[in-house]
Amino acid sequence: MKLATILHNNEQMAVVADDQNKQYLHIGQAAEQLLNKKLNTSSMLDCIRMGEEFTDAVVNVQEAVNSAENPNLFYISFDHAELLAPIPRPNKNIFCVGKNYAEHAIEMGSEADIPEHVMLFSKTPTTVIGAGEYVPNHEGVTDSLDYEGELAVIIGKTGKDIEAHSALEYIFGYTIINDVTARDLQAKHKQFLLGKSLDGSCPMGPYIVHHSAVPDPSNLDIETKINGEVRQKSNTSRFIFSIEDIISTISKGMTLEAGDIIATGTPAGVGKGFQPPKYLKSGDTMEISIEGIGTLTNIVK
Amino acid sequence: MKLATILHNNEQMAVVADDQNKQYLHIGQAAEQLLNKKLNTSSMLDCIRMGEEFTDAVVNVQEAVNSAENPNLFYISFDHAELLAPIPRPNKNIFCVGKNYAEHAIEMGSEADIPEHVMLFSKTPTTVIGAGEYVPNHEGVTDSLDYEGELAVIIGKTGKDIEAHSALEYIFGYTIINDVTARDLQAKHKQFLLGKSLDGSCPMGPYIVHHSAVPDPSNLDIETKINGEVRQKSNTSRFIFSIEDIISTISKGMTLEAGDIIATGTPAGVGKGFQPPKYLKSGDTMEISIEGIGTLTNIVK
Repeated sequence: MKLATILHNNEQMAVVADDQNKQYLHIGQAAEQLLNKKLNTSSMLDCIRMGEEFTDAVVNVQEAVNSAENPNLFYISFDHAELLAPIPRPNKNIFCVGKNYAEHAIEMGSEADIPEHVMLFSKTPTTVIGAGEYVPNHEGVTDSLDYEGELAVIIGKTGKDIEAHSALEYIFGYTIINDVTARDLQAKHKQFLLGKSLDGSCPMGPYIVHHSAVPDPSNLDIETKINGEVRQKSNTSRFIFSIEDIISTISKGMTLEAGDIIATGTPAGVGKGFQPPKYLKSGDTMEISIEGIGTLTNIVK
Repeated sequence: MKLATILHNNEQMAVVADDQNKQYLHIGQAAEQLLNKKLNTSSMLDCIRMGEEFTDAVVNVQEAVNSAENPNLFYISFDHAELLAPIPRPNKNIFCVGKNYAEHAIEMGSEADIPEHVMLFSKTPTTVIGAGEYVPNHEGVTDSLDYEGELAVIIGKTGKDIEAHSALEYIFGYTIINDVTARDLQAKHKQFLLGKSLDGSCPMGPYIVHHSAVPDPSNLDIETKINGEVRQKSNTSRFIFSIEDIISTISKGMTLEAGDIIATGTPAGVGKGFQPPKYLKSGDTMEISIEGIGTLTNIVK
């Protein structure tokens, strides 16, 4: 199940994305017309908070549409909607894990930079943009804008003091995040928040893939291309801290809420890691692909 | 003008606090009954977003109440309402400036820790509690819980690339924040987010004092007492980075939104600064007083 947030006839709604046929299923409308069920799909966050009631409803809607006389009535062509980030406005800052692949920690400094404990920072909600939207180059604010391809976890159930062995039960699904970073601001201000929070510096999407379609999130190929050139290529099996460990660590004493987003860290191959650095410039196309999750493409402008 | 958020008859509302007479003015009800005006006061954030329309309405309501036949109809005794944080659920993480008083930077390390640039980190919205609420001691999660008294700025107008000389125009008002910190987590996880975001670690209030009542925010006495003992005593004139500089720096490339909260940093005298450290323990009473803003009191439990 792939879920997207789109803008269609000026209305924001959560829909199912049918990549093969390049169309979205209007689950709200289909639920009402085929199942006589009111399903409020105006906010992905609210859908996630509904929990299994929502995902069960989506499954029922899909079955009803498949056996409907005229299923096309409930589909919206990709061309007739604007794709937004799956969660266009998160409810709090996005949690981000720093240096979760050893090779990346080393390229950012040395082996001494490999963390012993989860390093956690955040990006403000104002950074979020969808797949296909332009990332501002922020000329005059930074001269070292960099990309970071990452698997992101969407929390589906509110919890606290979550044990690692049950952490996966708290996950709604997965998406891709490009943790765009102003390296000069990141270094200058010591704490990462400012360098990580320029407007438009968090492309997210294209979809949320429900956890039921991702049997093993700890073994997914991840790759970032800049203008077609492969820069980052790794696998989530190379995480220093597993998704379970991350959720368990964050939730110790802090309530994780349904809809929270956790970016799990980026592999080696960021612009700063090259000699000389390969920072982003206007016109650069960034493509991040994660096995089973999709490809997130954005252009710098 | 002092604004509070209270829970009264299970209804959350923004009210005017009348400290002297220990009562709240129900501005929503008074607006409707005396001015025949619908004023939605169910959310302080929404009130702030209304801008001058809201503050003008409050002034009109106050005048109407003062000349009403039975003003008492519109007041709620402190005893009949539960005081919440003025913004019980911020729209994003709370921005916090680190090490903004030189003496504090030194007590946390050495003169080398005095920052050259604004150091910015955040606390999650789940940390917020009101005046008088208990701060959990988080036994088993941290053994070094510490207090940090701080002046907090509430942004009143959305803006980006704000120049320092016009920064004060973007301020709605001021409150007090206790940036409660788990020193062990802060050190262990390098980036501050985790050590700053335990549930209940951001007491806020008691009120928001409107900027019109704070002519010079850069010259306010600030004092923190633990169990009556003065631990922190300073003045906001000793900031390394002024409020104007902070707003200008944060908003470079990042949109600041109405309702955003910025804690401006804590003076010397935190528990960690003592030899041996004086960390918080259950039963400790923390009182932070800022000239013209009020006193924020919370007990550790």
